[in-house]
Amino acid sequence: MSIRTGIYGYGNLGRGVEAAVHGAPDMELAAVFTRRDPGSVRIRTENVPVLPASQAPEMAGEIDVMILCGGSATDLPRQTPEMAKYFHVIDSFDTHACIPEHFAAVDRAARASGHVAVISVGWDPGLFSLNRLIGASVLPDGRDYTFWGKGVSQGHSDAVRRIEGVLDARQYTIPVPEALSAVREGKEPELTTREKHTREVYVVAEEGADRARIEREIKEMPHYFDEFDTTVRFITAEEMRRDHSGLPHGGSVIRSGRTGAEGENRHLIEFSLHLDSNPEFTGSVLTAYARAAYRLGTEGMSGCRTVFDVALAYLSPLDGDTLRHTML
Amino acid sequence: MSIRTGIYGYGNLGRGVEAAVHGAPDMELAAVFTRRDPGSVRIRTENVPVLPASQAPEMAGEIDVMILCGGSATDLPRQTPEMAKYFHVIDSFDTHACIPEHFAAVDRAARASGHVAVISVGWDPGLFSLNRLIGASVLPDGRDYTFWGKGVSQGHSDAVRRIEGVLDARQYTIPVPEALSAVREGKEPELTTREKHTREVYVVAEEGADRARIEREIKEMPHYFDEFDTTVRFITAEEMRRDHSGLPHGGSVIRSGRTGAEGENRHLIEFSLHLDSNPEFTGSVLTAYARAAYRLGTEGMSGCRTVFDVALAYLSPLDGDTLRHTML
Repeated sequence: MSIRTGIYGYGNLGRGVEAAVHGAPDMELAAVFTRRDPGSVRIRTENVPVLPASQAPEMAGEIDVMILCGGSATDLPRQTPEMAKYFHVIDSFDTHACIPEHFAAVDRAARASGHVAVISVGWDPGLFSLNRLIGASVLPDGRDYTFWGKGVSQGHSDAVRRIEGVLDARQYTIPVPEALSAVREGKEPELTTREKHTREVYVVAEEGADRARIEREIKEMPHYFDEFDTTVRFITAEEMRRDHSGLPHGGSVIRSGRTGAEGENRHLIEFSLHLDSNPEFTGSVLTAYARAAYRLGTEGMSGCRTVFDVALAYLSPLDGDTLRHTML
Repeated sequence: MSIRTGIYGYGNLGRGVEAAVHGAPDMELAAVFTRRDPGSVRIRTENVPVLPASQAPEMAGEIDVMILCGGSATDLPRQTPEMAKYFHVIDSFDTHACIPEHFAAVDRAARASGHVAVISVGWDPGLFSLNRLIGASVLPDGRDYTFWGKGVSQGHSDAVRRIEGVLDARQYTIPVPEALSAVREGKEPELTTREKHTREVYVVAEEGADRARIEREIKEMPHYFDEFDTTVRFITAEEMRRDHSGLPHGGSVIRSGRTGAEGENRHLIEFSLHLDSNPEFTGSVLTAYARAAYRLGTEGMSGCRTVFDVALAYLSPLDGDTLRHTML
């Protein structure tokens, strides 16, 4: 039987999930839920209903796992615990500082209803987190570095778009080249957040909006921008379409460490991504973890998990014997 | 309580494990087992006994997890199932083609005795396998590539040393630069085993040994050399000491894939290692998985696992809450 998958929220990420579910041999799209007028939403998959978000609870018997595709700022803290009452759930909650609180809320809901939730799935948090954990566990005498970009951060662009007077926004995260080189050379530099990345924001503002206020609100936004050197540029809607329509991203997690009696041997572990489309790649990761959540659920598990708690075999549609034959 | 760890086999890998256990805050070395005369083996750790391998079963109550540090060709197929009768066990079995058979034998022994075994741990198989699994699960429409080196393969050097007339050997695995570049550029080339790597073997032969026969036996060795272009060079013991005393290694697992309605967006996932000391790094991975085996055992699990089956949180001495706070 195919894993019946729901998508809750149909923006860039929702479309990325849709494409990934389409490519999964053991999953099928059961429904898309939206807070917009369902009649106005065209999805790629044929013969799949687009339903109002409010109707999701009624689909409890017809969907195995719900992939939440809303934003971390205001959507997911409310939606993930709510949907965990009815389905196994997956989200991409990425406000690092608030993860423990979100985990606790989702865990309560999922345990009470007997569902499995996996939160903070994607590449960071997600695959990058796995690599930070591997690096620290294998090379405890060492130091790790995460670099993002150059690329568009959806979470940060979304946060800027919520500011009054902003019509559209695109935020690029850019590693500082000197910092990246020093780390790759094994120099283990001490780097502040500010020394590792710069942020560049392109904003289309409403006519007559107070640009100085918008710029200030961006630069002072906690967690998102306050610890970075941020450049804000106001552009036209036409320039936005022409120059900033893609959503590329990427980055690297690097662990630089030492082993041996005197720490005389040096090692470098690097995990890096080069992505043409961040939402499609993130959607692909969410979809693999949706498979995992469903399979953990069929084994009788319940409660909230993160990528740390899910054995990677659960991500694959192949059985253990095939995995050992082909990938070990 | 510290995890009481045994080392079974005290060569390069055993010494690497010893250093890693030393650096683990929650583990202690309980004993080292050797097939040599224990009196002839000096270990780094003070006040830890070196015992004959035959005495290992008598230590069943005093060791929680045994890390097997023998070779894949003849040691581990016998030792890992045998030791799984008495301890949680970890090995680095790396003859890819024989893994399913080894898994089955270890699984039988570990289930019967109620222990946890994790086999084929290290970086390949091991961390590289995890990355092949992630790549295939997240980007099913894609292709993966594993490159090794330039570096010394312990398993291959060991295999050559078992040939009659060989006193010492060092085998370097070298990626073909054109192949690596084509993959990183996202060209997804079709590459045979032979087109991806070359192998270079340095051999110190016994006086009067039949060098032509040694060279032939190396080049025709199944799984190890028969599918590669191999160069064999005979050198003196002095040249071996002078030029080939280190055991560096490394390599990359690269997944090149596509997403989107028409596969129009391309993505590259790369996991790479640069290691000064292969046995010390491998020993560090084995030690982290020894922690995992012990913890799975305390949860009442038994039977054989591979890296695919172990949630990565088990590798870390930190608890889930701390991991979510600091690494997610």
